[in-house]
Amino acid sequence: MMTKSDVTAMIYEKKRAGGLTWAAIAADIGMSEVFVTSACLGMNSLPKDKAEALAANLGLPPEAATVLAEYPTKSFDRTVPTDPCIYRFYEIVGVYGQTLKELIQEKGGDGIMSAIDFDMSVDRLPNPKGDRIEVRMSGKLLAYSAW
Amino acid sequence: MMTKSDVTAMIYEKKRAGGLTWAAIAADIGMSEVFVTSACLGMNSLPKDKAEALAANLGLPPEAATVLAEYPTKSFDRTVPTDPCIYRFYEIVGVYGQTLKELIQEKGGDGIMSAIDFDMSVDRLPNPKGDRIEVRMSGKLLAYSAW
Amino acid sequence: MMTKSDVTAMIYEKKRAGGLTWAAIAADIGMSEVFVTSACLGMNSLPKDKAEALAANLGLPPEAATVLAEYPTKSFDRTVPTDPCIYRFYEIVGVYGQTLKELIQEKGGDGIMSAIDFDMSVDRLPNPKGDRIEVRMSGKLLAYSAW
Amino acid sequence: MMTKSDVTAMIYEKKRAGGLTWAAIAADIGMSEVFVTSACLGMNSLPKDKAEALAANLGLPPEAATVLAEYPTKSFDRTVPTDPCIYRFYEIVGVYGQTLKELIQEKGGDGIMSAIDFDMSVDRLPNPKGDRIEVRMSGKLLAYSAW
Amino acid sequence: MMTKSDVTAMIYEKKRAGGLTWAAIAADIGMSEVFVTSACLGMNSLPKDKAEALAANLGLPPEAATVLAEYPTKSFDRTVPTDPCIYRFYEIVGVYGQTLKELIQEKGGDGIMSAIDFDMSVDRLPNPKGDRIEVRMSGKLLAYSAW
Amino acid sequence: MMTKSDVTAMIYEKKRAGGLTWAAIAADIGMSEVFVTSACLGMNSLPKDKAEALAANLGLPPEAATVLAEYPTKSFDRTVPTDPCIYRFYEIVGVYGQTLKELIQEKGGDGIMSAIDFDMSVDRLPNPKGDRIEVRMSGKLLAYSAW
Amino acid sequence: MMTKSDVTAMIYEKKRAGGLTWAAIAADIGMSEVFVTSACLGMNSLPKDKAEALAANLGLPPEAATVLAEYPTKSFDRTVPTDPCIYRFYEIVGVYGQTLKELIQEKGGDGIMSAIDFDMSVDRLPNPKGDRIEVRMSGKLLAYSAW
Amino acid sequence: MMTKSDVTAMIYEKKRAGGLTWAAIAADIGMSEVFVTSACLGMNSLPKDKAEALAANLGLPPEAATVLAEYPTKSFDRTVPTDPCIYRFYEIVGVYGQTLKELIQEKGGDGIMSAIDFDMSVDRLPNPKGDRIEVRMSGKLLAYSAW
Amino acid sequence: MMTKSDVTAMIYEKKRAGGLTWAAIAADIGMSEVFVTSACLGMNSLPKDKAEALAANLGLPPEAATVLAEYPTKSFDRTVPTDPCIYRFYEIVGVYGQTLKELIQEKGGDGIMSAIDFDMSVDRLPNPKGDRIEVRMSGKLLAYSAW
Amino acid sequence: MMTKSDVTAMIYEKKRAGGLTWAAIAADIGMSEVFVTSACLGMNSLPKDKAEALAANLGLPPEAATVLAEYPTKSFDRTVPTDPCIYRFYEIVGVYGQTLKELIQEKGGDGIMSAIDFDMSVDRLPNPKGDRIEVRMSGKLLAYSAW
Repeated sequence: MMTKSDVTAMIYEKKRAGGLTWAAIAADIGMSEVFVTSACLGMNSLPKDKAEALAANLGLPPEAATVLAEYPTKSFDRTVPTDPCIYRFYEIVGVYGQTLKELIQEKGGDGIMSAIDFDMSVDRLPNPKGDRIEVRMSGKLLAYSAW
Repeated sequence: MMTKSDVTAMIYEKKRAGGLTWAAIAADIGMSEVFVTSACLGMNSLPKDKAEALAANLGLPPEAATVLAEYPTKSFDRTVPTDPCIYRFYEIVGVYGQTLKELIQEKGGDGIMSAIDFDMSVDRLPNPKGDRIEVRMSGKLLAYSAW
Repeated sequence: MMTKSDVTAMIYEKKRAGGLTWAAIAADIGMSEVFVTSACLGMNSLPKDKAEALAANLGLPPEAATVLAEYPTKSFDRTVPTDPCIYRFYEIVGVYGQTLKELIQEKGGDGIMSAIDFDMSVDRLPNPKGDRIEVRMSGKLLAYSAW
Repeated sequence: MMTKSDVTAMIYEKKRAGGLTWAAIAADIGMSEVFVTSACLGMNSLPKDKAEALAANLGLPPEAATVLAEYPTKSFDRTVPTDPCIYRFYEIVGVYGQTLKELIQEKGGDGIMSAIDFDMSVDRLPNPKGDRIEVRMSGKLLAYSAW
Repeated sequence: MMTKSDVTAMIYEKKRAGGLTWAAIAADIGMSEVFVTSACLGMNSLPKDKAEALAANLGLPPEAATVLAEYPTKSFDRTVPTDPCIYRFYEIVGVYGQTLKELIQEKGGDGIMSAIDFDMSVDRLPNPKGDRIEVRMSGKLLAYSAW
Repeated sequence: MMTKSDVTAMIYEKKRAGGLTWAAIAADIGMSEVFVTSACLGMNSLPKDKAEALAANLGLPPEAATVLAEYPTKSFDRTVPTDPCIYRFYEIVGVYGQTLKELIQEKGGDGIMSAIDFDMSVDRLPNPKGDRIEVRMSGKLLAYSAW
Repeated sequence: MMTKSDVTAMIYEKKRAGGLTWAAIAADIGMSEVFVTSACLGMNSLPKDKAEALAANLGLPPEAATVLAEYPTKSFDRTVPTDPCIYRFYEIVGVYGQTLKELIQEKGGDGIMSAIDFDMSVDRLPNPKGDRIEVRMSGKLLAYSAW
Repeated sequence: MMTKSDVTAMIYEKKRAGGLTWAAIAADIGMSEVFVTSACLGMNSLPKDKAEALAANLGLPPEAATVLAEYPTKSFDRTVPTDPCIYRFYEIVGVYGQTLKELIQEKGGDGIMSAIDFDMSVDRLPNPKGDRIEVRMSGKLLAYSAW
Repeated sequence: MMTKSDVTAMIYEKKRAGGLTWAAIAADIGMSEVFVTSACLGMNSLPKDKAEALAANLGLPPEAATVLAEYPTKSFDRTVPTDPCIYRFYEIVGVYGQTLKELIQEKGGDGIMSAIDFDMSVDRLPNPKGDRIEVRMSGKLLAYSAW
Repeated sequence: MMTKSDVTAMIYEKKRAGGLTWAAIAADIGMSEVFVTSACLGMNSLPKDKAEALAANLGLPPEAATVLAEYPTKSFDRTVPTDPCIYRFYEIVGVYGQTLKELIQEKGGDGIMSAIDFDMSVDRLPNPKGDRIEVRMSGKLLAYSAW
């Protein structure tokens, strides 16, 4: 049975062979590059029609579209990520976690920022002192119930 | 010897007693609320003059200013954070970590977003479907050396 | 500075000395016993007026009401709980976790049950083969964004 | 030798190909959807006749019925689950674990809720503020021996 | 507030000062030595009258009886015990765990031996090749529900 | 090269196909069911003649007898077992570990119960309030050297 | 799809068969031996032309050059390395970590040594008391932002 | 009894009060700043005369000299360091560990670089593109025995 | 109540103040230095008369003798030791563990070397190429039961 | 490409088929049984001529000799070993680790016993109270540098 990781491997292969970018793959189905990349990596499910369009665009077999639209079980392997590019975000959560909490709650009361009703973007901003990466996360403010 | 956690406790006490906000504490010394909060929590060092201003504003003893300006050893207790408000960010790094890496490297070549030459903001955005929290992170794009 | 765990200790002391129950403590402020117990244990914040009522009812100092209304940093000590009564719930999550996910998603699409917009009850149900404990959890269905 | 995970894979394949639901698979053998799903995922054993009925309904080979009726060794991979839908239940156990214990023991004396003489349901409840997921767990009250 | 570990310390002190044995402490209140020792170590609750008798026998303050009768939160520090006398039992569970499961289920169907409706004894058996320790554990056979 | 886990798989297959019990497999070679089960699971070595008898009785190839008689490297996968039937024994060690130590040392001086010069039995005892499982462990009392 | 670990295996095979050294492999493409070795082990990406030269020199298939130039996900298996040659460096970081921090910050202000804009060399230095290994690490001094 | 961490605290206090640097403290006793800093942090033992000189220079009580000359038990708290300045070195060991091993063994045969017969320096090197930190480690080449 | 770690601290204090050696402390009570050191560190119990002699020799209070003769709960803090002198032994067990097992079982049948009926010595052996430390461990050969 | 674990498997197969002992395999190439066993298990490298002799003696293919002479990456799987025969050594390190350190440093100054310039033997010593296993470890005394 074809799995999400089988489909991820197929996509990587098409991407290498065709010299494609995530930006192009996402633009071709009219969705954001963060969301499409995460779905291609097996961490989100694409809407049915988008999954079919992506499979068609990349020349994947039809079953791949079914798989891309299935709900994933999100699984990440290491408690502390080892790749430096990913670790830096882990470190930011460690160093600024309590700060994020203090400010979210100061602005929004006892609650959290949702990681489900959530979207994110990644951009490269030109800067004379060296370009910067800007990551913008947006999640719904969820208030704790009291009952 | 007065430590960073002693000073954090003093600040929390003044903040509770005076009904203060991080926003106000930060504005009073002309710095951002994320940075000032993190420094008050012992995760960053304030510039000397800012530390003195903050200590004066809150009525802390002079040694507290020295301590706020000292370079901290950043230490976070749990490998996986337990507070839901902080955990959600850990989860985002787990679920979207490889996606962040793919896009940073697609846009910037083999490298990372710095967590040192870095700044961050937290805002509450009004939204008819429920207000949202927006976290914006910006870090310098650092390229891996080849030698 | 008085902390949440100081207040928890005061409440346990009053409870032991007065032979009180959580049910009575909660009923006296007109809230559910699950929520009030969790707030007394430092895992939730009481609304201001409820905190004041609870402090008054138990004869706690006024600062205790302030503390009960503050937003807690939820912290649990052991990755795998050791007390058998708590462990059994951990085991249920381990054994039935994927089942819960399959059914929540079959009924609600790709998403989760919120643990924030959430309430819970615990009841003892008489049963001729031996009484049973019924735990009912209710959380808002949150759908993953696609963007 | 055919294993429980072989059978789980067969069932997923039949389910995808036939567009089946867990609700239908369970109803067809006259058992609850939580229990049948967990048995299909290898976490519980079906009674012999139910196993045979399920295998026949799905067109599985006869050995699959034998396997579905065998007693499983329940094994869950990660100490802290990573999928958000499952993690939220882990978080609830962490945040409310001591509360559950306090109330179970207040209502039932020194003891626990059984996770063996246990049943559970998952329902979607319509709600004008957004539908809710209700999980109901029921386990026999077991008293600690004193001897 | 007096805690279970305070009472354990008092009991150890009385035991050292009086040259007492667990066997004698248990016999004096007419209960088994395993159960009484575990209650003195804070891992079980004594029935009210037994707690009072034990406190009186050892000359502990009355609050100690209250504490001994309270329901404990069982907590053990290390995932893998380090003391050799305790480790050997951990090792037995590791080496023979699957064997215990196979035989319990062969004799009793899909289910477990209860650790709650449970009792245990420890004896020294004279043996010409060297005396032996015999540990006998007895727990109610609990069958998994199917529903 | 045939390994212990290959032989375990063969035995499980013969056992399923023939509807055999561990009790019968053990009785046929005149050894206890605990020991024989553990040896079939790769956790103990059978005496040469017993290994040959078992292989012959089950119709295993001759090399299987060699493998059953080889000394195993005992390996158990998870620090904390997840199967409920096995976990309960882990929990008993956690809750009663210090109690076991106190009583073994009270009866036998500074030392331990051996897990090597060791035997164990598992029985189902009829009981009007519900049958019980009795596990009896017996190990040589080993005294710590002083030198 | 050819992976970095496939290419590493090819290189090890060529290296064994040809009796090659890392020094020679690196010299042949005009880069340092530390960087080239790390790239061959899948921990860094070679510039396109260097990857092609290396593949040609070793007789690897053209796809190997593509793979050597792709950006790696750096992954290291064990939290604490077990090989003694690698462990000693881990130990140095543990023993001297705080010392390194004190001195880097004394010389450079609040900041760190970059591990990205970074290079390293390994040399054997003749010494009458026994030759020495000298490892020289050089990273850009990065200052923490304040904002 | 005065401990190494007591002495470390005294030194930090003197250093803060006197505005001292590690460079000056080390120079005053004629030893390297890395070694002296590590000894002040309790990770190495100073020669007797150096310990006495350092204690005299800083105005520490005589027992502090005794403590500084005692052999430390090196203990580091976290398996993975959290402070970014220290973590980067951990990351370097993770990313380049196998590379270090390949090159040390290529240059020196089967063996390691000693972390005991070892010295280290930390320098800031001016650089037009941004100053750099250079860490130089030197350890005796130790060959594995064969016997 | 005086504990083993209180007594260890007293002994360290006497040892520092009197410039004593473990060799002398052990010789004065006619036992080996390994065993006496381990007992002073709280890892073994001294025979009553030896405990009294040691307490008298060092000028400890009488209760210290009682404590030294009590049976310790052996507890070691870190799963992987950090001090290099101790770590090397951990490493030897890791690297040579399977080798030790192969040879013990080749020489003694299926069984182990006891760590309870056990003694050990540590010596410095002069050697022209550099003195050596020799550690000799001796434990009773224990055969696994078969039953 | 043939790996060390391939060669280990070949040697185990030859050893089982030929009824060989490690003692004989080692004697045939004139080296110690500890060292040869560890090299056959992939934890040490044999000198070239010894590797060739061993391969010839056992009838292994020539590439096996190359592999036996290659420098291994020593890797051990579990932080805490599970096999009882190996665990006992881990336990000895835990229980006696600080004792070993105290005595090595009392005899040799601040330093360690090398695990690299190291040799070991394992012997069975006849003893009327039960034979004993004696393990003798010898490592060069390495003094910490001060610089």
